[in-house]
Amino acid sequence: MEPLQHDSLIPLYHQLMERLKESIEKRYWTPGDKIPSENQLMDQFGVSRNTAKKAIEELVQEGILYRIQGKGTFVAKPKFQQSLMGFYSFSKVLKEKGLNPKDIILKLEEVKPTAKVREALQLGEDEDVIEMKRLRCANDEPYILESSFIPKNVVSDMEKLKKVGEISLYDLFAQEFNIIVTRAKEAFEPVLIRPEESEYLQTENGRPALLLERTAYDTNGVIVEFCISIVRGDRCRFYTELT
Amino acid sequence: MEPLQHDSLIPLYHQLMERLKESIEKRYWTPGDKIPSENQLMDQFGVSRNTAKKAIEELVQEGILYRIQGKGTFVAKPKFQQSLMGFYSFSKVLKEKGLNPKDIILKLEEVKPTAKVREALQLGEDEDVIEMKRLRCANDEPYILESSFIPKNVVSDMEKLKKVGEISLYDLFAQEFNIIVTRAKEAFEPVLIRPEESEYLQTENGRPALLLERTAYDTNGVIVEFCISIVRGDRCRFYTELT
Repeated sequence: MEPLQHDSLIPLYHQLMERLKESIEKRYWTPGDKIPSENQLMDQFGVSRNTAKKAIEELVQEGILYRIQGKGTFVAKPKFQQSLMGFYSFSKVLKEKGLNPKDIILKLEEVKPTAKVREALQLGEDEDVIEMKRLRCANDEPYILESSFIPKNVVSDMEKLKKVGEISLYDLFAQEFNIIVTRAKEAFEPVLIRPEESEYLQTENGRPALLLERTAYDTNGVIVEFCISIVRGDRCRFYTELT
Repeated sequence: MEPLQHDSLIPLYHQLMERLKESIEKRYWTPGDKIPSENQLMDQFGVSRNTAKKAIEELVQEGILYRIQGKGTFVAKPKFQQSLMGFYSFSKVLKEKGLNPKDIILKLEEVKPTAKVREALQLGEDEDVIEMKRLRCANDEPYILESSFIPKNVVSDMEKLKKVGEISLYDLFAQEFNIIVTRAKEAFEPVLIRPEESEYLQTENGRPALLLERTAYDTNGVIVEFCISIVRGDRCRFYTELT
């Protein structure tokens, strides 16, 4: 590999990151491979320990590398890619990609909606909602922390929502409540993972995540769910095609 | 307002954030309004200084509030909303929303592409590209730090790209090089703003941002640009409709 440019405006750690990324992009290293240690990187690229440390740290933050305490730093699996070009169900998409989806229900109860949830569901002042909070995993690794808010009149029996571990929420809506979800609006913005979220998501707080808000409609255009998800940025990536 | 629930599982700072957000959502406070001081929040909600501080800090991080040194904390403008439902040009969308777009060219030169850029543009091993790095502002506030990588054969005269301050890049492509961009693929994931990016974007490093990668195609399906943008998370929000 070419040496780093010590007189460049591009910081050395950034140049080193690019080199390491290139080695992964060129499939010189593949997922699960151990990358060189800090000492080896210092020797190979003629950089300080701080520079090597910072490059690795940033790539860990980006989800491109991961660390195992006492073992070293390894190349991570590529991110889970989610298309925004059509209506999707996370559990179905995970299954299609050969990942085993699992939902852990953290909360299932009637709650007083916040102003935001009330407005999203177009509810009156005194109407309560059902909140179902789930940790959504793929191959036993948590990817998404998600709260679904569902108007009470949509769900005749809240207990039936517990089946969501076995089938997707929208399949449940169809099967149990005769509601077909066909359309959704989604909004997203980047956020930092909060302490209480990091515990569930098994990641450090302050890491990047996507805050995704979905409003789901049935065939009659009635809003049947408002959903707030925190999606781990180191595990997921979204894409779309614009014409 | 109702008192906070001190025996709730929801952290107090989070409850306080929700109350402050509700006041904004209900338009009790509007953009530019000064919110109560830490001391006033401590009195009004019966919370510690740490709790009041943390709630405000998080809302500043989310771009809902902003601080002016020595003056207080204020309600921010709503985020710029960008639809992903069709092909868009940032400068055109900004103009349509009554915001004054301005591009500052930070770099315009021939460079050796990284493996990633080479793959995205489907270039051979020895082909160089033109990199144009821009700081994209709305009403003189930086929103996006963006690098466009353009195959050399697309651009007959690199100097002509300097007009990008006056007209959009794709209008320039059409006008100067007879290339009509009609289609693009976009991918995005959340990241943290890096130190060297934070200076340009006039924000702190470690703040949330969206990393957006666009591959643009002309009418013949030829790739004419690969673009990497860092979009300030506290100023922009993306949305789409799924059917």
